[in-house]
Amino acid sequence: MTYREDVEGLDASILMHRRVWEASGHVDNFSDPMIDCKQCKSRFRVDTLGDAINEKKKEKFVKALEEKIDGADKKSALENIYQIHAELEPRFEAILESDVLSKDLLIEINCPNCGTAGQFTEPRSFNLMFKTFVGPVESTDNVVFLRPETAQGIFVNFLNVQGASRQKLPFGIAQIGKAFRNEINTKNFLFRTREFEQMEMQYFVQPEDDKKHYDEWKERRINWFKELGMTPDKLRFHDHPADKLAHYAKEATDIEYEFPFGWGEIEGIHNRTNFDLSRHEEFSGKSLKYFDEEKKEKYLPFIIETSAGASRSFMAFFVDAYNEEEVNGETRVVLKFHPKLAPIKAAIFPLVNKDGMPEIARKIETDLRPYLKVFYDDKGAVGRRYRRQDENGTPFCITVDTQTLEDNTVTVRERDSMLQERISIDKLLIHLLQKLK
Amino acid sequence: MTYREDVEGLDASILMHRRVWEASGHVDNFSDPMIDCKQCKSRFRVDTLGDAINEKKKEKFVKALEEKIDGADKKSALENIYQIHAELEPRFEAILESDVLSKDLLIEINCPNCGTAGQFTEPRSFNLMFKTFVGPVESTDNVVFLRPETAQGIFVNFLNVQGASRQKLPFGIAQIGKAFRNEINTKNFLFRTREFEQMEMQYFVQPEDDKKHYDEWKERRINWFKELGMTPDKLRFHDHPADKLAHYAKEATDIEYEFPFGWGEIEGIHNRTNFDLSRHEEFSGKSLKYFDEEKKEKYLPFIIETSAGASRSFMAFFVDAYNEEEVNGETRVVLKFHPKLAPIKAAIFPLVNKDGMPEIARKIETDLRPYLKVFYDDKGAVGRRYRRQDENGTPFCITVDTQTLEDNTVTVRERDSMLQERISIDKLLIHLLQKLK
Repeated sequence: MTYREDVEGLDASILMHRRVWEASGHVDNFSDPMIDCKQCKSRFRVDTLGDAINEKKKEKFVKALEEKIDGADKKSALENIYQIHAELEPRFEAILESDVLSKDLLIEINCPNCGTAGQFTEPRSFNLMFKTFVGPVESTDNVVFLRPETAQGIFVNFLNVQGASRQKLPFGIAQIGKAFRNEINTKNFLFRTREFEQMEMQYFVQPEDDKKHYDEWKERRINWFKELGMTPDKLRFHDHPADKLAHYAKEATDIEYEFPFGWGEIEGIHNRTNFDLSRHEEFSGKSLKYFDEEKKEKYLPFIIETSAGASRSFMAFFVDAYNEEEVNGETRVVLKFHPKLAPIKAAIFPLVNKDGMPEIARKIETDLRPYLKVFYDDKGAVGRRYRRQDENGTPFCITVDTQTLEDNTVTVRERDSMLQERISIDKLLIHLLQKLK
Repeated sequence: MTYREDVEGLDASILMHRRVWEASGHVDNFSDPMIDCKQCKSRFRVDTLGDAINEKKKEKFVKALEEKIDGADKKSALENIYQIHAELEPRFEAILESDVLSKDLLIEINCPNCGTAGQFTEPRSFNLMFKTFVGPVESTDNVVFLRPETAQGIFVNFLNVQGASRQKLPFGIAQIGKAFRNEINTKNFLFRTREFEQMEMQYFVQPEDDKKHYDEWKERRINWFKELGMTPDKLRFHDHPADKLAHYAKEATDIEYEFPFGWGEIEGIHNRTNFDLSRHEEFSGKSLKYFDEEKKEKYLPFIIETSAGASRSFMAFFVDAYNEEEVNGETRVVLKFHPKLAPIKAAIFPLVNKDGMPEIARKIETDLRPYLKVFYDDKGAVGRRYRRQDENGTPFCITVDTQTLEDNTVTVRERDSMLQERISIDKLLIHLLQKLK
């Protein structure tokens, strides 16, 4: 179901021609500097050795100070060591960013694996794209990459989609799909994995309108998380300062969520200008220019991108929904999912497994099933069945009881308030659909 | 939306541990025999040289006959050449299946690329799984494969899903997802591609009930295609004879569709017995046995698999729906998609772009959009707009005309019959939903 007339769906391929990734800049730039321990052959991302390197640098400077400075000034010089260290930090970052690490910095670092000192290779850049070969011959010509983001599939298909859908600027193309990054250090459950799900939208706009659309999509996207029930206090923007922008971006912000392990990006909104389309034009030799019927001219649109991690967003919704509450002296675990996100919308219980209650409950389940994901449960006390559904985040539990046999009504219990109301069975579907809307 | 209570959904990963593919048999068996031309370095799948090899064999036998047989018998012997050739065919197939091809058969074959005769290497087996490396070191230990089928992700997760969903036998696990095969010869549009979409379901049953469930799923699956409008005459089963069954199968059939290029498999139904679960138990060292509460025993279920190609099925539905018809002396191109498969469910037209018609049409579009994929079109004559939607397979076109201004009704035109009926705007949604059901 499409709620916006101006956004089309796409399912581009995961394996794309290597030229796509040359054009995007991933072949040249999507890499981490790595070093090997010559002794034990372990490989490390250089920045993971940052602390040890900093420590060594500090030691060296202290020693240099001690050697050069006479007794009288020594004390005050040592007191300044923290300031000196702080002055060193930016230099260290600059070294990391330039991918250059001189040997004399590494010579005294111990290998985190085997402990040997100073036996590291020069840093080499390691591309984070997964590489494979098309066809039987494993030659450079046959290399293809698993997409590290879904965005490029949208850029290269831009004119195909525009032509087929007859959209005019501004309009968007959205897709949900797997992306792959050969991360050295996966961490924090779903936060950094090698295979993950993205949901990206590229919104194509007239260049002069970029700021307006960028601001609008920023608001729309953070509201999307809030409207689906995410705690507003745990959401914030992190705007990228001008000197830290990615090579493709004119303006960029992250939507961050405060996970138990700290703030983490769950979506990025970027003004990518016409960087991507112009690069794909250059590398493919094919025009990607849009013909503007009103202006009677051809040009490359600017792109406002909303790039969400579906796996990360799922984890954020999940930890945000998790609650432990005290109910009648017992701990209740409840996932307070927004009804739209709950995997099961309603559970149906017969109060007891006799007196025709199971038959009525089964009939309700069968009637609801074509419209809602429902779950039938007749095992154990009703209280325990409620708790099981609380743990699943099921917003509604429907119970068939003795009164049902008399007046064809059931109880509908709401998960968060735990309040029950009696609803006539023939009004049940419409009642639930309205609550779930 | 789930229509069967006994089938759960899953989205397993594309990159899985190599042991999974050792257990499944793909590392050892999922390969094609390949030969290289030593002259031009081109590589060929051996069976693609079959025709040339057959031709050479025929020539050789003719020559041998001519040399051995004297003048009198020569003529009748040559007349028998077709019979002799037919007798050779099974032998040739046996050679191919055994992956053995003696040098003397290849010595007189010309390379299809450079034309050089007899410069081929020995056949070598080439695995059809795409291979990549996890982590920065490209060593054998770090090899992982892109899944060549979604099924194995279901087998290894069988007990996780069963425990979480509390399903009892018989029940199924289904998933739709990408699979990857490094095919040497892609062909026939979407029929054979390297990246494709599968929709598979594994139905776990008590071993003694395997035949019953196999037969039921066969019927259900071919009916699924028919109920979605596929021409029954273009669908057939191709049961695999006992001596041609795959290593995992006790019984197997293909559902084939008659494409313009011939009959081709769009789905396979297999009785896989407990082969897969027992192999994964063996290779992982973890039990995959199901505890049967009624029988009070643990055992490996049998698996009835329905393995459909989503991409191939799409192509079958597409070519089946394509029609060219003569209407009023003109050719009408129409995609007669079942309404459930039509990408756009309804198009909305104002008859003319004035008199308030566009506003009413826009309002209808906005009201329908949350429930249906709709398309607004106000370009060109209405006849041309109908034709455009016929080419899209849109089942219903709604037109706002002068009568609408008087009585709030619109015309609803049905794609195949081209008949129009007048419907009150406030009954439009329910009218369409009933037709689309």
